[in-house]
Amino acid sequence: MIQIAVMGHGVVGSGVVEVFQKNYKSIRRKIGDDVQITRILDLRDFPGCGYEDKFTKNFEDIVSDPQISIVAEVMGGLHPAFEFVKECLERGKSVVSSNKELVAQKGAELLELARCNHVNFFFEASVGGGIPIIRPLHQCLAANEIDEIAGILNGTTNFILTKMIREQMEFSHALALAQQLGYAERDPSADVQGLDACRKICILASLAFGRHVYPQDVPTQGIEGVEPQDVAYAEDWGGVIKLIGRAKRLENGKLDVCVGPMFLSGDSQLASVDDVFNGILVRGDATGDVVFYGKGAGKLPTASAVVADIIDAAKASDTCSTLYWRDTGEAIVEDAQTVSCARYVRLEGTDCAHWQRAQELLQVQKRLYRGGEPPEQRAYITHPLSGNAVSQAREQLGQMGIQMLSCMDVLDD
Amino acid sequence: MIQIAVMGHGVVGSGVVEVFQKNYKSIRRKIGDDVQITRILDLRDFPGCGYEDKFTKNFEDIVSDPQISIVAEVMGGLHPAFEFVKECLERGKSVVSSNKELVAQKGAELLELARCNHVNFFFEASVGGGIPIIRPLHQCLAANEIDEIAGILNGTTNFILTKMIREQMEFSHALALAQQLGYAERDPSADVQGLDACRKICILASLAFGRHVYPQDVPTQGIEGVEPQDVAYAEDWGGVIKLIGRAKRLENGKLDVCVGPMFLSGDSQLASVDDVFNGILVRGDATGDVVFYGKGAGKLPTASAVVADIIDAAKASDTCSTLYWRDTGEAIVEDAQTVSCARYVRLEGTDCAHWQRAQELLQVQKRLYRGGEPPEQRAYITHPLSGNAVSQAREQLGQMGIQMLSCMDVLDD
Repeated sequence: MIQIAVMGHGVVGSGVVEVFQKNYKSIRRKIGDDVQITRILDLRDFPGCGYEDKFTKNFEDIVSDPQISIVAEVMGGLHPAFEFVKECLERGKSVVSSNKELVAQKGAELLELARCNHVNFFFEASVGGGIPIIRPLHQCLAANEIDEIAGILNGTTNFILTKMIREQMEFSHALALAQQLGYAERDPSADVQGLDACRKICILASLAFGRHVYPQDVPTQGIEGVEPQDVAYAEDWGGVIKLIGRAKRLENGKLDVCVGPMFLSGDSQLASVDDVFNGILVRGDATGDVVFYGKGAGKLPTASAVVADIIDAAKASDTCSTLYWRDTGEAIVEDAQTVSCARYVRLEGTDCAHWQRAQELLQVQKRLYRGGEPPEQRAYITHPLSGNAVSQAREQLGQMGIQMLSCMDVLDD
Repeated sequence: MIQIAVMGHGVVGSGVVEVFQKNYKSIRRKIGDDVQITRILDLRDFPGCGYEDKFTKNFEDIVSDPQISIVAEVMGGLHPAFEFVKECLERGKSVVSSNKELVAQKGAELLELARCNHVNFFFEASVGGGIPIIRPLHQCLAANEIDEIAGILNGTTNFILTKMIREQMEFSHALALAQQLGYAERDPSADVQGLDACRKICILASLAFGRHVYPQDVPTQGIEGVEPQDVAYAEDWGGVIKLIGRAKRLENGKLDVCVGPMFLSGDSQLASVDDVFNGILVRGDATGDVVFYGKGAGKLPTASAVVADIIDAAKASDTCSTLYWRDTGEAIVEDAQTVSCARYVRLEGTDCAHWQRAQELLQVQKRLYRGGEPPEQRAYITHPLSGNAVSQAREQLGQMGIQMLSCMDVLDD
């Protein structure tokens, strides 16, 4: 019999037990062996819970139990999850995790440790909840060189932006509604500041390009600064604003990785990904664009991804060698100042005489319009501009009394 | 060194060689061993081809070569592909195939044979071209009970319908355009009659529900009968017409499987899958709706899926036990006459006095309108009706002089 421990009995952890119980028969058939969750680690008490006897507050009960061969880490946070996972791998247990912070910060180290100990470290649930993305990326698309990944990776911010687009809500009202509906946490900063999306694009980029991309190297912008006016300009342009995590292979071997609100053409498959849904576009050299869509969070979707990893870990005879990336110590993320792309900019200035010069500085491609636009505001789509060029233009415009109120990337088709 | 043979050097077969050569370094790294395509079976000559020395016209050169451990079958058609694949499996070679006809007709038998011989039979490329769907379905979604699958599985018909919807083309003109652009074959019947989509939904249903679903048991309707008027009525309803292959688990344990043009609400994620793209929705009990989108055909996308299977077969130490279904001999597909769903119907009748009775017979939910509608035509969306109820209504309406010109299922959300 295969014995499993679950570390953490919060939303995802209790979901893992629930999915396991509900679909036990088919899970057992797929594993081809008897299988049981025998231990659950949590510091809290769960009196009256149907499986109270399985709980422990002591990590040693899990790591020292030679019968337990697979551990699901669904605690979240970096510490002590990292220390616990490390020790489990060192003691020859496979670990499956839904913890995006852990994988984004410590992925290379934990994968190397798993490899050395001939066990597996799986993390399908860390990105996209129940949407299959980690395994398709490293397995089904294995014959491709991945050129680019772009995704709507955070359901909370996508819900907020959808409300701003469809109902012309202000950001603060949409956030309050998201909190009321339970989509946003009381402290929503990790979501709205783009940190959650950043961790996820780091995981996808590391896997697709084989080298560890750290969140701290990725320029990350949240959606707090997005205003209804920006939404209206996007509409005039024929598109929408979405919080996008993007990673793109550059010709010099480095990666353009960034997170921020971006302008998406209405034709983009990601443009119709609304509400709390996630959508992830993967561009392979052979397969072209492939898009994965579904609920990116939630108890049962995430738990089902954890359980799918458990099934795979139970069946694996050795380390899955293709789910792997290294930390070479070199900087892999290109300096954003040197990367060019078309931009959306919204400007404010009182001296009309300067607009012509502003358009030249910004290499304007198209002016945008919206209803009720005050004479002192203008918005444009530029030709591709480097980060440096934008900074310089911002400064020169400032000297002319023109303020750059918004600047967002335009996602290439 | 792992030696591979490719059977068939048509569009997909030459693509397999191309992808293999192009991404050789990363494929080798992923397999972790040296790997070569050493034999290619084709009855034609390819003078001047860069790898002319690998060709053979004799299947024996492949099946009797103990050095060859993996065979890619990309010939298409049932015979002799079936006999060749069977013999390869019996001789202990893993087989990967892009052949949907073969898998839809012989899947259970070949999977059983692979299992007995401790080798693998993979077929990611048989559905959805380069879109990962077979592996996510049996692996990533393994912790789910699948409740339903619905997909736009044929790019040719989706291109034709997109032209009918966007440009109000007639079916015959759109088909001619598709042929001109190389999207439709000279004999387009397998596509436009729904046979290709039928084979693919059979493969997905067999895998998701564990029992072989045969194409001949699946009621299949093509798109030849779809008229611009139907497209216009769908627009009034707020939706579009798509050729859908659908498989749904019923409470009695049987499956509702069918292929035909259906009405889709504009909110459906499948409604925005246009042109030659495919989209497949999988509804799991834990994960909810997950959608996979991409190019469902084409040389390199399909070839890359074949090569991904080759990589997996090269790494596998034994049979992949979860990619499996059985033929129990029992009928698994429910009689379509007993299955209920809402329908779109378009009627023609000269005696206005009968419309009220027609609406009662059809349990009408909503009348649809379109520009230029002649007084003798009407279209409705009905409440859920069984196939039997539709047949009876059709007969009774006929007696009243009302003809049912169109009838299509409305896909549930």
